[in-house]
Amino acid sequence: MKFGAIDASGNRFLCGITTENGDTIDKAVFLTETPEKTIPKVIEYFKGKAISALGLGCFGPIDLNPNSKTYGYIKATPKKGWQNFDIVGSLKKALNIPIYFDSHTNLAALGETIWGAAKDSKNTIYLTIGNGIGGGAIVENKLVHGMMHPEMGHMFINRHPRDKFIGTCHFHGGNCLEGMASIPAIERRWHKSLSSLEEDHLAWDLQSYYIGHAIVNYILVLAPEKIILGGLVMKYGNLFPKIRKEVQKLLNGYIKTEQIKNIDTYIVPPDLGEQSGFFGAVALCIRNYK
Amino acid sequence: MKFGAIDASGNRFLCGITTENGDTIDKAVFLTETPEKTIPKVIEYFKGKAISALGLGCFGPIDLNPNSKTYGYIKATPKKGWQNFDIVGSLKKALNIPIYFDSHTNLAALGETIWGAAKDSKNTIYLTIGNGIGGGAIVENKLVHGMMHPEMGHMFINRHPRDKFIGTCHFHGGNCLEGMASIPAIERRWHKSLSSLEEDHLAWDLQSYYIGHAIVNYILVLAPEKIILGGLVMKYGNLFPKIRKEVQKLLNGYIKTEQIKNIDTYIVPPDLGEQSGFFGAVALCIRNYK
Repeated sequence: MKFGAIDASGNRFLCGITTENGDTIDKAVFLTETPEKTIPKVIEYFKGKAISALGLGCFGPIDLNPNSKTYGYIKATPKKGWQNFDIVGSLKKALNIPIYFDSHTNLAALGETIWGAAKDSKNTIYLTIGNGIGGGAIVENKLVHGMMHPEMGHMFINRHPRDKFIGTCHFHGGNCLEGMASIPAIERRWHKSLSSLEEDHLAWDLQSYYIGHAIVNYILVLAPEKIILGGLVMKYGNLFPKIRKEVQKLLNGYIKTEQIKNIDTYIVPPDLGEQSGFFGAVALCIRNYK
Repeated sequence: MKFGAIDASGNRFLCGITTENGDTIDKAVFLTETPEKTIPKVIEYFKGKAISALGLGCFGPIDLNPNSKTYGYIKATPKKGWQNFDIVGSLKKALNIPIYFDSHTNLAALGETIWGAAKDSKNTIYLTIGNGIGGGAIVENKLVHGMMHPEMGHMFINRHPRDKFIGTCHFHGGNCLEGMASIPAIERRWHKSLSSLEEDHLAWDLQSYYIGHAIVNYILVLAPEKIILGGLVMKYGNLFPKIRKEVQKLLNGYIKTEQIKNIDTYIVPPDLGEQSGFFGAVALCIRNYK
């Protein structure tokens, strides 16, 4: 038996085929253009591959409510052409197999829990900091869903006293994490590309400040046992030690756990690199397919 | 068979006896003075009552890790005399029955889920706004625990542009919700008692601003299906409609769910009044005692 899996982000659809145990058989990448351009390529890729089910992690917000008329749709995304697109319906119509659907960041948290950096954790947060900022969460080994999936990249955060930047979020301007700490925010604030910012640039102090504030709030709500930070931004500016220090400074001794004490093993990069979400989609098939 | 239950807050220990189905047989209240004064009265109350188990909801932070040396202890509380007090150990030694232990706000969320305003919800947040601010959460019908219980009353929030108050939190000054929106914060900021603030006082605009910000952040992390606001502060200033409006304003159309649309039935007072935590402690006995 074989499974198909998709990790759909704002940049690319990472598609692949695995065995029923999650061993990779094949992979392919398609750019996230418009639904009209991208989806036919994805369908073409999976057709005739004899997969029994498909796991789909998708950028959001998405509708995960099975009782909703728009279940399986992408909702108020700023990504042009994808608003109100019925992604599950389109794939299901063409492939006619069970499709298991969740946010790509929830699935990144799941992938890291099953095969990655959070193997020993039942309560995990995965945050990706790139062109957008998105987060997923596992509580007691379950993916977090309530009235929808987490959208923690839009968390409201304190403005840094030295920062006058107006922010880039279409919904929350400079009040939310995505508006202040995503790649577009960094590049517009400093009029430089991400890769051209020196390691001692003030940009990285602001990044640690904003990401540190958001992480402290995640900790205060969910008390996760592991926090995984992925996405392109985390590859620059020596951010991990700066963020860890900021989190300890902000908590100021209020939360006294082994994790906060040993913060180097608490706030960590993903073990699965760019593939956390892909393997989470595989794990979703394994969990759900009978 | 009978159960005992305690809801221990910074002000009082609400103690009681119920049937195995949760019907109240008896109740008593003891002030939260020091452990030396209060705990003997609590023990005296339960002794000889033939209860099979005790549910205990306690103010925090508390240690809920069964593998920790300080399991069952109250930790870094600002409440004098209670730091590092072994509350579970003290009661267990005297009563010698199973004790089920959680944060009083987690149990308030549980009580409201089983018998109160969140009966139809699998994902619930309960926030109490009083002398302190504390929150508990249920995800997929499970109490949220990771490396500890939620401490969401200390969430970092944006300062209101017109507010110069330095804050009252021992750990986070004026950066966190408790430091800016608890009763001590309100009364020190305005030099007035809570009950003497007129309904059109600016105080209530600030309260809605701060509580609204925190709720938006809880929504973005947990996407709860129901949010319950309890505590003395919520009885003043006609806060519910103001907070609901603030939440919709801040989200600014990003989260489009039935709950946000019908916000009057989404952000609500507790059905069980002051007894949400007590009944949560009863529910914990029913869930765990075989």
